[in-house]
Amino acid sequence: MKVFIVMMFLLPAAMNCYEGQAIASERKQSQTITKAGTQPSVRGSDKFFTGNVRIEPLFSAKGTDAPFGGAYVTFEPGARTFWHTHPTGQQLLVVSGVGRTGDQTGTLEEVRVGDVLWCPPGVKHWHGAAPATAMTHLALTGTLPDGKNVEWMEPVTDEQYNGKR
Amino acid sequence: MKVFIVMMFLLPAAMNCYEGQAIASERKQSQTITKAGTQPSVRGSDKFFTGNVRIEPLFSAKGTDAPFGGAYVTFEPGARTFWHTHPTGQQLLVVSGVGRTGDQTGTLEEVRVGDVLWCPPGVKHWHGAAPATAMTHLALTGTLPDGKNVEWMEPVTDEQYNGKR
Repeated sequence: MKVFIVMMFLLPAAMNCYEGQAIASERKQSQTITKAGTQPSVRGSDKFFTGNVRIEPLFSAKGTDAPFGGAYVTFEPGARTFWHTHPTGQQLLVVSGVGRTGDQTGTLEEVRVGDVLWCPPGVKHWHGAAPATAMTHLALTGTLPDGKNVEWMEPVTDEQYNGKR
Repeated sequence: MKVFIVMMFLLPAAMNCYEGQAIASERKQSQTITKAGTQPSVRGSDKFFTGNVRIEPLFSAKGTDAPFGGAYVTFEPGARTFWHTHPTGQQLLVVSGVGRTGDQTGTLEEVRVGDVLWCPPGVKHWHGAAPATAMTHLALTGTLPDGKNVEWMEPVTDEQYNGKR
């Protein structure tokens, strides 16, 4: 996810390129469109994910106006995040496949296309694919003014992933 | 969109039902999952939209932690919003089809699956389907503490929709 955070900082620069420097001073007067295929996917680091994970950055947080970044994250079967918290919370929208999520209360929930997940600030959680099927979610992650949006912790064990506390 | 705003206020109540009142006092200690199929679609009002528009509410803004609401919006061919602004901006992610968008600078842009659109605070814009194809986008709309997230204006004329200024 460190790579992901770096991408979030690079994104505004990329968007400036798209707009063209000539109109940079007018950017607050017009929309910005970032076309599909212009932002490379990033492999999820094995420091923060178990298994194969692909991150597709979409947009970065924009100060106090829109203090959240967005990315599609695809987990191959069995893949999942490490345990982590978000300082101002995270919304997840499942957009394909079937996955699993758990939190600090010991829950283990199946999530499917169309499910909407809210993780409040500071709640320790994890999310990923089901054992035999991939899962993609849109992650909308609250971002502090200093750019911080996640605190990474230890891996989710196979026992935790399979629902044994 | 007035209906949409009403839904955004009803959503927290619906989520309380999902969690169950018994754990309401603990809600900040655990995740909340809103299952697909539990939040009815809403028809876009003809006071704010031209043509057939369907809104699928996903989640409401959550104070200063996550001050934005989310909904899928589907526009049938030729359908579009009226002109409007957002007090703290709006992110749009095109998730299916081909559409059009314009802003106060007189632009007319085609948008396709995977395109990401950012409308800054106060910029007058519109968005909708292409003339012959439907378009669905995820709308992530910044919301003020008082719940306000949009200021509606006049309809987009056929001339504006077709790119004649």
